[in-house]
Amino acid sequence: MSEVPTGLADVVRRIGPLDSSAVAAARERQARLTKPPGSLGALEDVSVQLAGLAGVCPAPVPEPAVVAVFAADHGVHARGVTPWPQAVTAQMVATFLGGHAAINVLSAQVGADVVVVDVGVAGEVPRADTSRLIDRRIRPGTRDLTAGPAMTRAEVEEALEAGVGVAQRLIADGAGCLLTGDMGIANTTASAALIATFTGADPAQVTGRGTGIDDATHARKVAVVTEGLRRHHAVLSRAGHDPVAALAAVGGLEHAALAGFVLAAAAERVPVVLDGVIAGAAALVARAISPDVVAACIAGHRSVEPGHAVALRRLGLRPLVDLDLRLGEGSGAVLALPLVQAAARILRDMATFDAAGVSERAEGELVARGGPGHDGTGA
Amino acid sequence: MSEVPTGLADVVRRIGPLDSSAVAAARERQARLTKPPGSLGALEDVSVQLAGLAGVCPAPVPEPAVVAVFAADHGVHARGVTPWPQAVTAQMVATFLGGHAAINVLSAQVGADVVVVDVGVAGEVPRADTSRLIDRRIRPGTRDLTAGPAMTRAEVEEALEAGVGVAQRLIADGAGCLLTGDMGIANTTASAALIATFTGADPAQVTGRGTGIDDATHARKVAVVTEGLRRHHAVLSRAGHDPVAALAAVGGLEHAALAGFVLAAAAERVPVVLDGVIAGAAALVARAISPDVVAACIAGHRSVEPGHAVALRRLGLRPLVDLDLRLGEGSGAVLALPLVQAAARILRDMATFDAAGVSERAEGELVARGGPGHDGTGA
Repeated sequence: MSEVPTGLADVVRRIGPLDSSAVAAARERQARLTKPPGSLGALEDVSVQLAGLAGVCPAPVPEPAVVAVFAADHGVHARGVTPWPQAVTAQMVATFLGGHAAINVLSAQVGADVVVVDVGVAGEVPRADTSRLIDRRIRPGTRDLTAGPAMTRAEVEEALEAGVGVAQRLIADGAGCLLTGDMGIANTTASAALIATFTGADPAQVTGRGTGIDDATHARKVAVVTEGLRRHHAVLSRAGHDPVAALAAVGGLEHAALAGFVLAAAAERVPVVLDGVIAGAAALVARAISPDVVAACIAGHRSVEPGHAVALRRLGLRPLVDLDLRLGEGSGAVLALPLVQAAARILRDMATFDAAGVSERAEGELVARGGPGHDGTGA
Repeated sequence: MSEVPTGLADVVRRIGPLDSSAVAAARERQARLTKPPGSLGALEDVSVQLAGLAGVCPAPVPEPAVVAVFAADHGVHARGVTPWPQAVTAQMVATFLGGHAAINVLSAQVGADVVVVDVGVAGEVPRADTSRLIDRRIRPGTRDLTAGPAMTRAEVEEALEAGVGVAQRLIADGAGCLLTGDMGIANTTASAALIATFTGADPAQVTGRGTGIDDATHARKVAVVTEGLRRHHAVLSRAGHDPVAALAAVGGLEHAALAGFVLAAAAERVPVVLDGVIAGAAALVARAISPDVVAACIAGHRSVEPGHAVALRRLGLRPLVDLDLRLGEGSGAVLALPLVQAAARILRDMATFDAAGVSERAEGELVARGGPGHDGTGA
């Protein structure tokens, strides 16, 4: 077992596996719905997970939903891993607060709320619109991970607790589903370092090229990740035992906050839909702190960033959306939300053969024996 | 060019390609949105298609949406291609009308209406609830395609026109997006024959196993499809020139109606979201009648039925949802609807750098030069 950060002891104590009797009840109920067994594919698995998480079958539909966009900057930006200035982090935060970024538009489409959590933006963030902003800035960005640890242990613990606090507050305010979002120039570099650390993958395998990056910058980015991993080798080789130290060495403030956010959701038995590679890296950290955290996690999508697929495989999560997205912000999580809610609705609202009553049972059973077989079910 | 069915001449005359200036405007607008260019992947392509179809940029959000479930039976059922009795078609139609089938639950989740169109159910369908039912039954199921043509040319034309009429009625009533659904025991057999005909694929390659089908039944199903293709070889070899004759030989009443439905949507420049393998087969027929019909088509999902992937490749459509679904009913189309609407909303509602005004332009342009690069964009 890994060392549990002191402030998280109570959260971690409440994280557990799916409720096995609710899981069994959900599997059994799926088999009684008026459709061919298994014909809703991955959505059936989601419905079973939601029941197991809620400890009741059928689970409530996960709503209302809130996406928390954790924003922070990265000292490794100084190493030239991206052509974009660090100021863009604060500029995009301003756009989120203004309500006209992609995450705002996509959230409006699916009825999710957006909050923006500043856990470590380097630049100035507008404080006028406080309705969407949660100010938990711990420091103005991490330190350069190739020059030393990105954070102190105290900073990591503070960021973890910030994430826990955001999740607990949103749930106390009524959220039935949490979604992860993120913003931070250079955060894919720190993510690559974390994913390589927690999966054992080669830096070149998990470090993405992205849109705006040329061959030279990509080569530099891989070299920077490799250098960071070498520098912190002693600490990172014990990441499974001391994930907080690994986070401090090569992670970001938003990774720490996201890990806390996911852990708190799991403790509260509230499903958390993960976005892309940043969330995947943070979930690996959370899993090292408490393996059962994945019971609460749903992979919203698979990013084109190569490290994300590696992270998802290690987490054992199947992404629901796979549309070559690489925006971040929480966009992939928000796009998956209707699929998650549909899965819950199917289990809650569809007719079962037995509930259809005696006069319809004979008809129902014809179907129940293996499904009507339309659209590929053997009909 | 293929022969256009007489009743469809007016519809086909109005089908055309995407509006190139709206397409160009949409591509240009995507590049000006406050996000890394290309970072919304396949959704950007959908937004461009919607603009090209509407002839205006940005396109209106495709709503309200209606799924039309075309139900019919198949004479080839007599050949033992499925273990399920033909009566299940009418039973499932009754479940749709009662409002508790998967398609009803999924449609409620995404705010789509459901209508059920009986174009050829063999059994009795409840006529009491006429609010959801459109009665266009042409005959109680097709004839056995291995014993002769499944339909007469007159029946096919009547079914095509039924589908046209349903689409026109829904659009006249205000629908901004149409979705295809289907129900009919043995309809994957007819679909396999159509897909093999219109793509040149081998029957074994496009004939699915499904859930309830054992090795012996699958082998029989492949043999039946092969036998049908051989029997009608002369007609089917001219399918590109006379798609109505090919439909008459091996198709279903719902395939014909779906083809008409899709053609009418394209003529009215209304997007149509296709469900699974049945819709894929029908879309191949529609494309043979009028190649530009695909400009209006969006592939909702990819079914596990192998013929569906073959059909989608031929149609040149990328599925939005890929979750091992094989339910039919329109479920895959309905699940994709929020993604389609999200694509339109992005283009309509997101801030552009130029619209952000002078004081924000300097910030915006930093982002505009290639994107903030979070989540895999090179940051």
